[in-house]
Amino acid sequence: MKIGIIGIGLIGGSMSKDLKKILPDAEIFGFDHNPEHLKTALELNLIDHVGDDSMIEEADIIFLAIPVDAAVNALPDLLGKVKDDGLIIDAGSTKSLICSSVSGHAKRRNFLACHPIAGTEFSGPTAAIDGLYDGKTNIICEVEKTAFKLQEKALDLFAKMGMRIRYMNPEAHDKHIAYVSHLSHISSFMLGKTVIEKEKNERDIFDMAGSGFESTVRLAKSSPDMWTPIFEQNKLNVIETLEEYIQNLQAFKDKLLNNDMEGIYQEMEDTNKIKEILKGIPLNKI
Amino acid sequence: MKIGIIGIGLIGGSMSKDLKKILPDAEIFGFDHNPEHLKTALELNLIDHVGDDSMIEEADIIFLAIPVDAAVNALPDLLGKVKDDGLIIDAGSTKSLICSSVSGHAKRRNFLACHPIAGTEFSGPTAAIDGLYDGKTNIICEVEKTAFKLQEKALDLFAKMGMRIRYMNPEAHDKHIAYVSHLSHISSFMLGKTVIEKEKNERDIFDMAGSGFESTVRLAKSSPDMWTPIFEQNKLNVIETLEEYIQNLQAFKDKLLNNDMEGIYQEMEDTNKIKEILKGIPLNKI
Repeated sequence: MKIGIIGIGLIGGSMSKDLKKILPDAEIFGFDHNPEHLKTALELNLIDHVGDDSMIEEADIIFLAIPVDAAVNALPDLLGKVKDDGLIIDAGSTKSLICSSVSGHAKRRNFLACHPIAGTEFSGPTAAIDGLYDGKTNIICEVEKTAFKLQEKALDLFAKMGMRIRYMNPEAHDKHIAYVSHLSHISSFMLGKTVIEKEKNERDIFDMAGSGFESTVRLAKSSPDMWTPIFEQNKLNVIETLEEYIQNLQAFKDKLLNNDMEGIYQEMEDTNKIKEILKGIPLNKI
Repeated sequence: MKIGIIGIGLIGGSMSKDLKKILPDAEIFGFDHNPEHLKTALELNLIDHVGDDSMIEEADIIFLAIPVDAAVNALPDLLGKVKDDGLIIDAGSTKSLICSSVSGHAKRRNFLACHPIAGTEFSGPTAAIDGLYDGKTNIICEVEKTAFKLQEKALDLFAKMGMRIRYMNPEAHDKHIAYVSHLSHISSFMLGKTVIEKEKNERDIFDMAGSGFESTVRLAKSSPDMWTPIFEQNKLNVIETLEEYIQNLQAFKDKLLNNDMEGIYQEMEDTNKIKEILKGIPLNKI
């Protein structure tokens, strides 16, 4: 079996690690716009070979793990090249544009639109880890548009990686993910920005920051290359979440200004509900 | 040696665990407004006895770990009761009001104003953990107002717990801590609120939330009993940080609306600097 991994960073590299375990006989070919990443991926044994165009045509599976703007650009061409029973799986954090980019494609059935909800704030092949996908949710969109045998093939791999599958249409995916992922990143980036701006003397941050700050600001370490196109593609949903978030912050500030401490207490107590919600989520593995 | 721990929750209970190791012969007396907490603290061996008023007068050290409004109320009386070489140490997340509450007190030199930057989102005696203070920063305010011998006694204990000490005036403490701690809590609480409000069907959150959301929303599990009086006491600083945070979020939203993706990229790249800032911070112990 020949597998191509396009984008051999955290997501692609971790996928490769899992695939090597599940399919020990598979040959894995890596693609990346950064030659250093390919070199590192070979050294780390994430891939067996550097891929070329002819490999795409022979590939049984192509795993596309590049920023979502590049994915939208690359997918129609790639899909045109795969063999009849070849399968392309993507891993983008937005799903509407990627699905519409191939909606009328002659080989649409060779593509499975996925979003494995897994990752860390790090990037590049050195960030790849074993078992990244174990216990994580994989959102599959428009599953009915993928050939049944190829669905089966993908689901078998995902099951072996320990992923739970949820089916959703691309629009619902993009709307919900704006709340639970995209907004978290912006709230974290802007928290980091606010504190950095204020504390010109970094020593003060160093001295007073605790694990609470670290946790809340962790996502502000994320890659702008990955996140700029996500925000661009999911702009309208993200703006809506941002407006609601800003309104809630504003209301909290107004309560403080008005000495409405009962209201402040209530807001926090109501939101403590998040404990129960998070309890059931298998998030703590990374 | 007799030690009183007033408020036998996460902070007081973890302090007790450390003190028992450092001073195996010390008798530890617990105080708490919640009889269940006292019972649990005895069962968990966090304390040796339940304390009473007469104990305060005999105590060598009193560690005050209750919400900051209760601390401001209780401190002047407690300080009036301690013996000549008794020492009261507090652990409040705000320092101005607590320091001014005893600024003219006849026994001011028996008090050391502290803020150990340590904790988790959990509370109560069952949340107490070993080594909570190891590697953490302890901010000491107005150190010059504490009797030299009592300073020495406290610093010796803090050193044995592995804490790094920083000295600061109460106003600077409250201003800086608003950025690196209080604002993080509000950003996290309001993130939780925004998502809960939107996702009436909790199943959607459950399915799509990843470790990034969990990390960013972790502080929204924190206790309203502890945090309401902190926000009240540090209102002006907190409002200032909130205004700057809201402005930054608004500017990010405007960039998105105007399709200024270069600006969005730049914001994130600039804020990635937080990686370097956080690298030096010994935060990862809990």
